[in-house]
Amino acid sequence: MAQVRAATSSLSGFPEWLPAGHVVERLFLDTLRHTFELHGFCGIETRAVEPLSELTRKGETSKEVYLLSRLQADPAEVADPRKQLGLHFDLTVPFARYVVDNAGSLHFPFKRYQIQKVWRGERPQEGRYREFIQADIDVVGDGSLPLHHDVEVALVMHEALSALPVPPVSVHVSNRKVAQGFYTSVGIRDDQLIEVLRVVDKIDKIGARNVSEELVGQVGTTPGQAQAALRLAAVTGADPDAVGAAVVAALEGGEPTALLTEGLEELGALLRAAQRRRPGALVADLRIARGLDYYTGTVYESFMAGHEDLGSVCSGGRYDNLASGRKRVFPGVGISVGVSRLLSRVVAEGLVEVTRAVPTTVLVAVMDEEHRPASEAVAAALRARGIAADLSPTAAKLGRQIKAADQRGIPFVWFPGTGRADGAAPATDSVKDIRSGEQVQADPATWVPSDPADLAPRLVPGAGVPAPDKTP
Amino acid sequence: MAQVRAATSSLSGFPEWLPAGHVVERLFLDTLRHTFELHGFCGIETRAVEPLSELTRKGETSKEVYLLSRLQADPAEVADPRKQLGLHFDLTVPFARYVVDNAGSLHFPFKRYQIQKVWRGERPQEGRYREFIQADIDVVGDGSLPLHHDVEVALVMHEALSALPVPPVSVHVSNRKVAQGFYTSVGIRDDQLIEVLRVVDKIDKIGARNVSEELVGQVGTTPGQAQAALRLAAVTGADPDAVGAAVVAALEGGEPTALLTEGLEELGALLRAAQRRRPGALVADLRIARGLDYYTGTVYESFMAGHEDLGSVCSGGRYDNLASGRKRVFPGVGISVGVSRLLSRVVAEGLVEVTRAVPTTVLVAVMDEEHRPASEAVAAALRARGIAADLSPTAAKLGRQIKAADQRGIPFVWFPGTGRADGAAPATDSVKDIRSGEQVQADPATWVPSDPADLAPRLVPGAGVPAPDKTP
Repeated sequence: MAQVRAATSSLSGFPEWLPAGHVVERLFLDTLRHTFELHGFCGIETRAVEPLSELTRKGETSKEVYLLSRLQADPAEVADPRKQLGLHFDLTVPFARYVVDNAGSLHFPFKRYQIQKVWRGERPQEGRYREFIQADIDVVGDGSLPLHHDVEVALVMHEALSALPVPPVSVHVSNRKVAQGFYTSVGIRDDQLIEVLRVVDKIDKIGARNVSEELVGQVGTTPGQAQAALRLAAVTGADPDAVGAAVVAALEGGEPTALLTEGLEELGALLRAAQRRRPGALVADLRIARGLDYYTGTVYESFMAGHEDLGSVCSGGRYDNLASGRKRVFPGVGISVGVSRLLSRVVAEGLVEVTRAVPTTVLVAVMDEEHRPASEAVAAALRARGIAADLSPTAAKLGRQIKAADQRGIPFVWFPGTGRADGAAPATDSVKDIRSGEQVQADPATWVPSDPADLAPRLVPGAGVPAPDKTP
Repeated sequence: MAQVRAATSSLSGFPEWLPAGHVVERLFLDTLRHTFELHGFCGIETRAVEPLSELTRKGETSKEVYLLSRLQADPAEVADPRKQLGLHFDLTVPFARYVVDNAGSLHFPFKRYQIQKVWRGERPQEGRYREFIQADIDVVGDGSLPLHHDVEVALVMHEALSALPVPPVSVHVSNRKVAQGFYTSVGIRDDQLIEVLRVVDKIDKIGARNVSEELVGQVGTTPGQAQAALRLAAVTGADPDAVGAAVVAALEGGEPTALLTEGLEELGALLRAAQRRRPGALVADLRIARGLDYYTGTVYESFMAGHEDLGSVCSGGRYDNLASGRKRVFPGVGISVGVSRLLSRVVAEGLVEVTRAVPTTVLVAVMDEEHRPASEAVAAALRARGIAADLSPTAAKLGRQIKAADQRGIPFVWFPGTGRADGAAPATDSVKDIRSGEQVQADPATWVPSDPADLAPRLVPGAGVPAPDKTP
């Protein structure tokens, strides 16, 4: 068993894994990819860079962009701000641009997954990196997109995360139409809406009382409107009818606007479908506002049981207007998981280990350098049947060769018969499971490990620090 | 069959694939990774950025580095050149740094593969990108590294490339000790060696005559020395004894230095081992100099039959001094394939296609929106058995749903029995292979495609532009 050590960083904010950690990361990503593909999502990758104008189109300068310049640039090139490039800070902005660039060649609704590194020039701190991996799924329609895709992306992401050896994740869902419709219903002005969303979004950080004070003091709502906003934020639950009733009750007699009614219908349909298809995966949570972003309907945040302090491990929502071409509009809905942050936490807590850090199933011993070709032949025969095999780098004493295999986590050592026969008839090959000590005669043309799981490294639950029970 | 279109670029030098091209790229990379792992290479990734001092340590400013700056940087940070970061332009420099950073935690000899994007701010042109994927394998020792690893990396890369649907690749090999030893043997001075290597390296581009003129006119060798260098560059062949004899003959009576003898022994051992293990993979080619790089022994370049105009598709060599820690030195040998360039060429020539652009094996038809849950249940049952399934986005006429599957390349359409039974007993499910038109009754709990290869997209040889025969 290879214990997995936290990613190290000789450059602040840019962590790197040792080989065992890399195996864990790859198995995580393979699991996500497999689930996404099972549901018919196509993989794409976009370039790492975008024009700065694209990156700042939504005024998202808070996500500090890394700008690029060439060491040997033409002075003219540097001076031209239209040519300024930056590294992408998420995968949504590049995906929207990709859809518009390639609209003529894609089939809509276009379901895509995208797993790539992103960069943010933030001040590094625990769980905040300057380079990290995101895994996104989105469905984008041409002109319109049915609501059942809002259910789909949440459930697919939930299924993907459930396939990983991590604590249970639940997806919390709200709807911007509910929030905005509700605020309007209690008399909050249109020009205050974005600010109200932004302040309510901070409720987990600053608490209800400070939210209320900010709403009245800074945004300029009445105390009654602030109280109403807090009543809405307190509504949670998985039962669609109860949630709808609670939102209406929170109006305390106010008249629901058409937008609120529409939002409640969407939220109810989402909860009903989720309850039927994947009970327990989704819960309504009207605190969720995702203030500054580009969402227009459903919004998601997700929390890992016992690790709520991490904040949302995957987030997203419906955006009706993110991507638009000359005459077309492409509404979409998507959800994104911050893989590096999630993985760092489960590694730090010892929740996951890997059976070994190397792909190698068999180390073929080398009896002496003259007989290295005999060992090469054994390894070649094993590889031809898909069994990863390596040779001892030197013909050290057999005890040292076995010890080296053990240290590297290779489960089997193969002893070629040839090379020990000092001129006599060749001895038989044998293979030793160095975990159990069991040694058997074997033929490289037919041998397989008795447990096929030994053919590749795999994730196993770690002994772990017991997660503090922070769930209510 | 999905024809694969060339990667497009709305930003010069930063190509992006449509989904079919992305599938091809992924299958290429999976094949490389699989072969590397079969041979016991561990995967790692390094961060995309390195300190500029690291990137320019070997004076490699010709590979135009992209510098990073933060949009919202502190002025002090920008002014401090020690904090200047750049994007890596290859995977060798970051790997050397990674080995030194983590030497205490790695097992040596450390065999690693690394498949990542790299960036170069070069002027974009055909086959030259600013962002592209490289796949590297290296073996690094602690203090020393046996020569058999020089054979290993070349043969593993050859095996990996042979597993791809591309024209045959042959690895051409030389040895810096042979070249330098030979030049010294004919009286070329030590201070001229690097320049001679650099000029001879251009022989394919400028021809023997211009090489000779530059050697005499610019480097200052005698005409006889220049002729000797050209005689050496003309030596090729797979037979170790014949190659050794030809090099000595090219001295025309000059006395071989110890370095030349050592180099010929290394080259001979390499050719002999390769001939035994993978006949036809390696050929000695004494033209190969790789002038400015950090190699100290074996050097490789590789050419794809019929596509020699591409130049070397994968290159590398032995470096005894690239990585060194405080008290340790880590000699290594490695080889690197420029995946994006190779892939672009085989796509442009139509040499490779993919059976489909989507992961989806089955599209489950939706009879009407009310019965969408019945279709969801079918899809869930298929996915539970590892069969990728998608639902029709809308309950359009069945003919349109089938046509949509066909356009997207999904081979099977599933018709749930429920939903057509207008209240009567449910009809039976059936599934149609839309390529053959064959339709059979089926149960989502047991059905599998008659050809298991239909379970995932796979690479197939393309009709292709017949490759022009440029081999001699």
